[in-house]
Amino acid sequence: MEPSVKEGNGKEWAKKAAIGRAAASLFEKKGYLETSLKDISEAAKLSKGCIYYYFSSKHDILYFILDVYMDHLLEGLEDELRKKTDINSKIQFIMHRHLSLYNNRIPEAKAILTDAHNLPYEYYRSIALKQKKYSHILADVLSEYFDGEMPMNKAKAISYVVFGMCNSIMHWHDPDGQITLEELSGICFSLFTGGIRQLKTNQAINT
Amino acid sequence: MEPSVKEGNGKEWAKKAAIGRAAASLFEKKGYLETSLKDISEAAKLSKGCIYYYFSSKHDILYFILDVYMDHLLEGLEDELRKKTDINSKIQFIMHRHLSLYNNRIPEAKAILTDAHNLPYEYYRSIALKQKKYSHILADVLSEYFDGEMPMNKAKAISYVVFGMCNSIMHWHDPDGQITLEELSGICFSLFTGGIRQLKTNQAINT
Repeated sequence: MEPSVKEGNGKEWAKKAAIGRAAASLFEKKGYLETSLKDISEAAKLSKGCIYYYFSSKHDILYFILDVYMDHLLEGLEDELRKKTDINSKIQFIMHRHLSLYNNRIPEAKAILTDAHNLPYEYYRSIALKQKKYSHILADVLSEYFDGEMPMNKAKAISYVVFGMCNSIMHWHDPDGQITLEELSGICFSLFTGGIRQLKTNQAINT
Repeated sequence: MEPSVKEGNGKEWAKKAAIGRAAASLFEKKGYLETSLKDISEAAKLSKGCIYYYFSSKHDILYFILDVYMDHLLEGLEDELRKKTDINSKIQFIMHRHLSLYNNRIPEAKAILTDAHNLPYEYYRSIALKQKKYSHILADVLSEYFDGEMPMNKAKAISYVVFGMCNSIMHWHDPDGQITLEELSGICFSLFTGGIRQLKTNQAINT
């Protein structure tokens, strides 16, 4: 059974989301292990009692953050892809969506990469399954791009490499530096589209 | 002043290298913080006293591992690049070298990405400077590839993205899985060469 922290009405949800946002920013600045519930209650301007009303532990908050992020990544993605008939638009869409969600939710995106392993196993597994589903969607699109002639395990590997490329940015990008995230997204997108075109050419040569 | 742990004669060096290898494997399996000097002495089949003869602390061992890895990456790289007149061979060379050193030294490569931040500042800085130099060499090659028309800060960003792509593999690749590191290196290389060709095309369109 999937751990459920998203129960509650609209108002409760808004409060949870506010706690999640405050916590994700702290995890990014101080690190997950170094952040206390006291820090979170101060940043969210809520009493510790109020935080405990919504979450049973810091793990619970982390799980909530990661689960909501993964749901955002997945929500409606397959429906949107189905609407597009041209494979290049599908690829452009999935890549653009990935990078723009990341750009809008940097602390949450970083938490997925750096903190997920701190979750208790059952929670971690639930997040990992969503990540797997997400990668699988890109792998399916890639498989279509390669006219079904790329073995599925290779298509999956390519999807991991592509997401790895995008995600690695967060380890070094300085928002106050000379390169904007938008420029970086453009670079990633060109590397990706040019890269898979090259893979398709290689494939045509080898078959 | 650069911290110096590489002093000593050939025999001492061999012993240090053996301790470093044993420690890097443990850091990979158990995590840096969870590995004790006792674990390292057992894995290296040396007494704790012997380990202390060569290294003053666990930090010292980590620094040694990372410093040697960076030296391997940098050693002779610029000389080799100077010997090549064709820009595509330069790119092929640097990429192949990066991936093959990684394939041969996985625990050390992982330690660079996951443990370097545990070093005391002065040590960390010395490693970070070598990493910067290394990225700068690829950025120079890329700048040549783009006929000097790519702004240097963008060339640097591209070099970070490219290394990020290669390095992200270590977070998910299963050596016992269906895809070999060699196949993955091939995928990275194709994504990279196709990707920068696309960037060059974009540049030609925009100028």
